[in-house]
Amino acid sequence: MKYTALQIAEILGGQVEGNPDETVNNITRIEEGKPGTLTFLANPKYTTFLYSTTASVAIVSKDLVLDNPIKLTLIRVKDPYRSLAKLLSLLEQLPDRDRLEEPCWISPSATVSKDACIGAFSYISKGAKIGNNVRIFPHVYISENVTVGDNTVIFAGARIHHNTQIGKNCIIHSGVVIGGDGFGFAPQTGSDFTKVPQIGNVIIEDNVEIGSNTCIDRATIGSTIIRKGVKLDNLIQVAHNVDIGRNTIVAAQTGISGSTKIGENCLIGGQVGIVGHLTIADGSKIAAQSGVGQSIKKGATAQQGSPSFDVIPYQRSYVLYKKLPELQDRINKLEAALDRLNAD
Amino acid sequence: MKYTALQIAEILGGQVEGNPDETVNNITRIEEGKPGTLTFLANPKYTTFLYSTTASVAIVSKDLVLDNPIKLTLIRVKDPYRSLAKLLSLLEQLPDRDRLEEPCWISPSATVSKDACIGAFSYISKGAKIGNNVRIFPHVYISENVTVGDNTVIFAGARIHHNTQIGKNCIIHSGVVIGGDGFGFAPQTGSDFTKVPQIGNVIIEDNVEIGSNTCIDRATIGSTIIRKGVKLDNLIQVAHNVDIGRNTIVAAQTGISGSTKIGENCLIGGQVGIVGHLTIADGSKIAAQSGVGQSIKKGATAQQGSPSFDVIPYQRSYVLYKKLPELQDRINKLEAALDRLNAD
Amino acid sequence: MKYTALQIAEILGGQVEGNPDETVNNITRIEEGKPGTLTFLANPKYTTFLYSTTASVAIVSKDLVLDNPIKLTLIRVKDPYRSLAKLLSLLEQLPDRDRLEEPCWISPSATVSKDACIGAFSYISKGAKIGNNVRIFPHVYISENVTVGDNTVIFAGARIHHNTQIGKNCIIHSGVVIGGDGFGFAPQTGSDFTKVPQIGNVIIEDNVEIGSNTCIDRATIGSTIIRKGVKLDNLIQVAHNVDIGRNTIVAAQTGISGSTKIGENCLIGGQVGIVGHLTIADGSKIAAQSGVGQSIKKGATAQQGSPSFDVIPYQRSYVLYKKLPELQDRINKLEAALDRLNAD
Repeated sequence: MKYTALQIAEILGGQVEGNPDETVNNITRIEEGKPGTLTFLANPKYTTFLYSTTASVAIVSKDLVLDNPIKLTLIRVKDPYRSLAKLLSLLEQLPDRDRLEEPCWISPSATVSKDACIGAFSYISKGAKIGNNVRIFPHVYISENVTVGDNTVIFAGARIHHNTQIGKNCIIHSGVVIGGDGFGFAPQTGSDFTKVPQIGNVIIEDNVEIGSNTCIDRATIGSTIIRKGVKLDNLIQVAHNVDIGRNTIVAAQTGISGSTKIGENCLIGGQVGIVGHLTIADGSKIAAQSGVGQSIKKGATAQQGSPSFDVIPYQRSYVLYKKLPELQDRINKLEAALDRLNAD
Repeated sequence: MKYTALQIAEILGGQVEGNPDETVNNITRIEEGKPGTLTFLANPKYTTFLYSTTASVAIVSKDLVLDNPIKLTLIRVKDPYRSLAKLLSLLEQLPDRDRLEEPCWISPSATVSKDACIGAFSYISKGAKIGNNVRIFPHVYISENVTVGDNTVIFAGARIHHNTQIGKNCIIHSGVVIGGDGFGFAPQTGSDFTKVPQIGNVIIEDNVEIGSNTCIDRATIGSTIIRKGVKLDNLIQVAHNVDIGRNTIVAAQTGISGSTKIGENCLIGGQVGIVGHLTIADGSKIAAQSGVGQSIKKGATAQQGSPSFDVIPYQRSYVLYKKLPELQDRINKLEAALDRLNAD
Repeated sequence: MKYTALQIAEILGGQVEGNPDETVNNITRIEEGKPGTLTFLANPKYTTFLYSTTASVAIVSKDLVLDNPIKLTLIRVKDPYRSLAKLLSLLEQLPDRDRLEEPCWISPSATVSKDACIGAFSYISKGAKIGNNVRIFPHVYISENVTVGDNTVIFAGARIHHNTQIGKNCIIHSGVVIGGDGFGFAPQTGSDFTKVPQIGNVIIEDNVEIGSNTCIDRATIGSTIIRKGVKLDNLIQVAHNVDIGRNTIVAAQTGISGSTKIGENCLIGGQVGIVGHLTIADGSKIAAQSGVGQSIKKGATAQQGSPSFDVIPYQRSYVLYKKLPELQDRINKLEAALDRLNAD
């Protein structure tokens, strides 16, 4: 690739500030920028690098105010991060897939669309239906009666268990397990447990992305549901009968216990735990490492802590947690002062 | 399936209350019940749904007291959850397995019983022994000298490393890694580390279930042991030389560090961390997200917190943690009042 | 194996104290020692077992002072744990690998050295380069243009995505995913998100070990870097553009968010979370379950808590957290006493 600042500005619908003929042949991060490369400023935290970078062209916000002279050419856009996404998608090159690599195992009763790609060592069980333009990488396991919607990509080594339904335009990363048994046991005589069979399934709607080694368990009865546009990071646990609302984003290593229903447009940090049978309102924000023990009924609030509560009082308490030795000192002094008063 | 309430009551040894000829053809959750379906009430939290559900028949506890009129037929049983487990096991249909799917890779020196099933692309190394009625799904790796007991099921993509012993009636879910190296390094000259080879193994006793993507490391020397009836959820870390006692249940994403010995009948919540070289008494309960830093010597106690201590004082402290701003205010006022007194 | 105490002392450069002709034929842990076996005392916590063990020979520190009579022969060495590592490496027997097991899938444009071993059902994509003496176990996925340095071992079911570079003498355990997409989304019109393509890669330098089911995401732009000698335990999350410095050790289930730079020789406990875009100084120690929310600028300090701060004040506050009910009582009493004084 070799583009001028002007060409890139036209792709992005942005304005050039500086030399429109400046050429770039690669993208670099602003803290690592090199001459002849394009960089971008999406996170204000990195603004100081704009004055020192040796990159030749930078994509910045149309509202950015410069505090110092700069050496490079700017392309001003409405949303630098979204513009970056657009540029990167032009550059991205996923490995090509052949239609069918041998050996793979496809049941005679499976339906595989004519333009789907199935990688070597992948396994498509009976009754499975693989949509148009689906790309299945090697070592993927698709169990009985699974359906995979059009344009979905399933990376190497994902396991999709029986009766799972996956929508269109989804991305399932390596090592993901969808539809493993939920964790349910009924106490038996003595201290043994009987397994409660898990006869439900998992439904993944359209435009969902599921990160590496994340696990989504099948429902005991009914369905575990991941709704349209949800993005799950790596190593997340989603238990049986959970329901995650549209466009909710969940960061890595979070665990959601059985039958909990999470609203739309929530932002859930990393390593969060949410206990079972709760309802989390639309637009909730949960800080990383929080433990949510009660339903969140009011929408668009934020919580922190384990057990979690509203983020502002949580942080107020945490400031005082750090000052506990000082508070104790003050109590000690009060007691001593009172003793003196009483002794008078 | 199509059953009358009376037929189901006979299967479960329960009593019909209402119309014994009411028929059902599916099971639904009580909050989603539809006409013509059977539902159940196992968690008292959902009792209100009993009065509004449109399901036709419900399995409930023999001790349930009705506060309002109901429209559906009840089947009263001793333990609704256990009755549900019984019914579901009649309905469950795991994917069929053929005896041997091609291609699979079986060492000439491995012993595979005549009625075991080996899925396509599975790998059975030399010296491995696969018992009667074992079902191995596709993409499973069984390394050298592994033994798998009768009736055990190993789902797609599990990895069982050399010398692991797995008992009878176990269920190993997708992506599980058993017998990976323990995490041991000895400081070398400078700041480098030398790997401590891990020459022990893992022993999984009978009736153990291990959830998706859980990791159980081999012992440095000796064995990491998961005893009879233990149930491990998804994404759990069990380090080298850990020993987990009979019928202990561990929820998802918990981590147990090296050489820790956990008693029988413990209930360990999700995202718990337990440091190495501890002993946890029989019947211990550990709340989710707790960090256990010291051995628990007294049986059947409960802990919470990070680091954890007894749950009752923990929760008492946590209530006051939330009130720290108020406590600080009271200290401020005391100081002001004392100042006034001293000024008098 | 059958060795005398003297032979072992010579291998380790140690001194025999007791019977140099005492023979042993196995290694046991000191709390489980049996006659005819060699044991070791590396953790002072286990010293009492030295006086009761029935093992025949023990490796101990040259500085160990005996408080009681012992029955076994000692071999005194400078560093017992390192000596153990040396002995175990003589005993360790990894499964043999054949050069090429069939079926495997190797692209004609891949370069596989003559003495590398490729397990059955493994997949080597186009442009990949596999170095000398590399051992690749079954079910491994090596995507396009991946390079694997000499002597590296990749266990069953690891997935290495396109353009990843792996150095020499690395160990990649089962279920590891290297080079999955970073988790980046740009808000779109309404509440939808657009995926930010991840066009960078992952670089793993020499002598790195990566535990089972750990995930290391590719960079958005540039590289996610795991530097020489780093040891990562199981089920760890390393996000896009993270950089982990030399010889840093990270325990299981820790998560490191995007673009964070971790120094050399750090010790990071289990289940730690580190937020994105931070810098962690060389030699930092982070206690298990901590949540690091700010950069750590001073080297060789220790932190604890969520959010974390210096370990000493953290623990001081935690002692008082446990005493909050007592502090509240004291405030109650002060208020009562003041009321009495004011009433006077």
